Amino acid sequence: MKVGKQNVYFNETQRSLHSSDESYHQPSLPDVVVYPQSKEDVRSIVKLAASFNEKIYPYGLGTSLEGHVIPYQKGVVIDFSQMNAILSVDPEDLLVTVQPGVTRDQLNQELKKYGLFFSVDPGANATVGGMVSTNASGTNSVKYGVMRDQVRDLEVVLADGTIIHSGNRAVKSSSGYDLNNLFVGAEGTLGCYTEMTLKVYGIPEKIVAGRVQFPSLHDAVYSVTAVLQAGIPVARIELIDEISMMKVNQHNDTKFPLSPTLFLEFHGNPQSVQHDLAFCESIMSDYNSTDFHYAKDNAERSALWHARHNVAYAFSHSEPRKKLMVTDVCVPLSSLAEAIKHAQMTALEHHIEAGIVGHVGDGNFHALLLVDPHDSNELANVAAYNEKIVRFALQVNGTCTGEHGVGVGKVKYLEEEHGDALRVMKSIKRALDPTNLFNPNKNIFI
Amino acid sequence: MKVGKQNVYFNETQRSLHSSDESYHQPSLPDVVVYPQSKEDVRSIVKLAASFNEKIYPYGLGTSLEGHVIPYQKGVVIDFSQMNAILSVDPEDLLVTVQPGVTRDQLNQELKKYGLFFSVDPGANATVGGMVSTNASGTNSVKYGVMRDQVRDLEVVLADGTIIHSGNRAVKSSSGYDLNNLFVGAEGTLGCYTEMTLKVYGIPEKIVAGRVQFPSLHDAVYSVTAVLQAGIPVARIELIDEISMMKVNQHNDTKFPLSPTLFLEFHGNPQSVQHDLAFCESIMSDYNSTDFHYAKDNAERSALWHARHNVAYAFSHSEPRKKLMVTDVCVPLSSLAEAIKHAQMTALEHHIEAGIVGHVGDGNFHALLLVDPHDSNELANVAAYNEKIVRFALQVNGTCTGEHGVGVGKVKYLEEEHGDALRVMKSIKRALDPTNLFNPNKNIFI
Repeated sequence: MKVGKQNVYFNETQRSLHSSDESYHQPSLPDVVVYPQSKEDVRSIVKLAASFNEKIYPYGLGTSLEGHVIPYQKGVVIDFSQMNAILSVDPEDLLVTVQPGVTRDQLNQELKKYGLFFSVDPGANATVGGMVSTNASGTNSVKYGVMRDQVRDLEVVLADGTIIHSGNRAVKSSSGYDLNNLFVGAEGTLGCYTEMTLKVYGIPEKIVAGRVQFPSLHDAVYSVTAVLQAGIPVARIELIDEISMMKVNQHNDTKFPLSPTLFLEFHGNPQSVQHDLAFCESIMSDYNSTDFHYAKDNAERSALWHARHNVAYAFSHSEPRKKLMVTDVCVPLSSLAEAIKHAQMTALEHHIEAGIVGHVGDGNFHALLLVDPHDSNELANVAAYNEKIVRFALQVNGTCTGEHGVGVGKVKYLEEEHGDALRVMKSIKRALDPTNLFNPNKNIFI
Repeated sequence: MKVGKQNVYFNETQRSLHSSDESYHQPSLPDVVVYPQSKEDVRSIVKLAASFNEKIYPYGLGTSLEGHVIPYQKGVVIDFSQMNAILSVDPEDLLVTVQPGVTRDQLNQELKKYGLFFSVDPGANATVGGMVSTNASGTNSVKYGVMRDQVRDLEVVLADGTIIHSGNRAVKSSSGYDLNNLFVGAEGTLGCYTEMTLKVYGIPEKIVAGRVQFPSLHDAVYSVTAVLQAGIPVARIELIDEISMMKVNQHNDTKFPLSPTLFLEFHGNPQSVQHDLAFCESIMSDYNSTDFHYAKDNAERSALWHARHNVAYAFSHSEPRKKLMVTDVCVPLSSLAEAIKHAQMTALEHHIEAGIVGHVGDGNFHALLLVDPHDSNELANVAAYNEKIVRFALQVNGTCTGEHGVGVGKVKYLEEEHGDALRVMKSIKRALDPTNLFNPNKNIFI
């Protein structure tokens, strides 16, 4: 193995650093942490671990929210943070090829030089590998799509050490079965990514961001549905409720008004953005919108989105002793207002202070709340709350997770959500990872 | 079985009708043709066929171009044309649920009442089931994406008779493995679709279509790359070369100029379309474009796209004794001009009259040619031509098929294109269809 002694750690500090993620899920120590430098290193680690019947846990930056990276069955954590090279940027093909440890900020810094950007923006500055792994999305998805829509090719090390490519560099293909979309969102249960080719976009000629308040969350949500039905190609449309806004103001020292608010952004040419804005304003006024405010420059625009991206941290930093739980259902747009109302009412019933934020253009919303992980009553109470939200989503033919993934936290809902299709997923896991080598007991397992 | 005698045919006429597709591939008779009326019928047919060890071939309208539906191993053709109900149209969710036998024209007729449209438009008026099966695309894909981008849920009858749903009605999901994208493009090798939920779009406020000529194919292709890099959200951008244009004029009695031509379309609000058009014209003038002509009304616009959609029929009807061969590679945009030039030069070397048309915004182009299926020398010559085009595409990290699928015609390239990933695909086929019941020897088989 080329990894070398200097990249293999058995010490308590390293093991502890890789024992948890950003969520309330219980930590657990791995046996060893390894930092590969190349795909050959990854292959060696996989083969060695398999020969000792040790489990493997791919790790990016540990920003997951459902315990995805926690090594509950001991074994080897593979930390990809040193495989963080941007291998090529190809403006002509609008593609970039990177190693899995590249972070989204790092990628966008580099792309900016070419007038390009990478569209997927979860709250955390996650690694691209982690984002592929959970099929992450974010505020831009309503226009640009989720992680699955960006992945053109993955290099993957399989359980037997074989290295495959799941796709190619063409815009579309009807050749064989689609493996890109199978490996995206597999949460490290089918293999380790060692390289990824992703779609990027030209920075739009004109970008306008703004915010608008509503008297009720209901009005805000219905206005979003109306805007989308009108076909306005909004680039971002994010809901933030009063509780979340309060936490944001405390955390960022901002003075956003404390009412249900939409943060919006429009991308295009100056004429189209002007038209879209005016059309959007006129629709939203039918839903009692007040105080449309546009960012006057790039700095104000950045501050707006910085505040939005930090909502989760605004919560978790407000009570450092507690840990974060974030629900993540996604429902059909026609059920969104009702689902959010249900989440608010249920929080009241459970005496939980939950903030609601949402990628409402996608029908995806989060209830954010803090929980003392050592208080079993509190844990049981918030778990019951989460469960009711999920059940509501499944009843309207939605999903238990829109973008955070299953990890360990959502495993219990897969049977109910997928029915017999879960057996198909498990048969695929069995075919590709028969010894359950990769990230056991997460997402799909056997 | 509820199918009933009246829906089961053993006669020569029915068997012959289901022995071929629209391509040059050799016909072969099935044992029997069955027309199910419901998913329960499909399940009964699958179970019965499996119990007799008979193969199953799902069939839409037989418009495939690589022999996908031909029953080379005898057995049962399931013709879905009588399962052609539009089950629901949901403007609020921008979703439609249909049975697989619905055709794209039928669907768009219905959607028009709601101000909606379905975006995928292959040349043929195919069934939606067939389009899902091959991951079809068409002229609109550059803006709206391919079939995979439209499928939100499929109801599928598996080899053991289990009926599953591959997705849900939410815009996005990170729950479990992605089965939607696995079943889309599987070409009937993993199961039979009995219901599908698809994304639809609002008919844009403003649509402008037009055409523009270039002195060379090279200029035309480079202008497309430049337009896409500039981020102009063109809705359709189609290349038609002189030979194809001649066939089009003969077939449709039109008088399009005989030079390399782009057919274009812009969707949006009046302001943005105006801006995009002007920007596009100015870019294209750098590539020596001449004679920008815009359709003055809807009738002229329809005539334009009718001509484009009928290019393949313009060829096949020009020499009824011969059969159609259509190449279908897709390459990275940066290699498109070179790939098309290579296809033209190679046609000259092989003394083949091949027309080139292309969804150039996607890097996907077709060489259309006619072949006498009874002349083995001619067949060998065009096969060698096709092979050179495919090999070029694979060398630049493209794919052997951008939208037509593998069928039997492209099977021989899968090893070269996918390498060890082909083994992964086969392991999935083995896991889901261990007895090779569905559409054997097409696409992925064991």
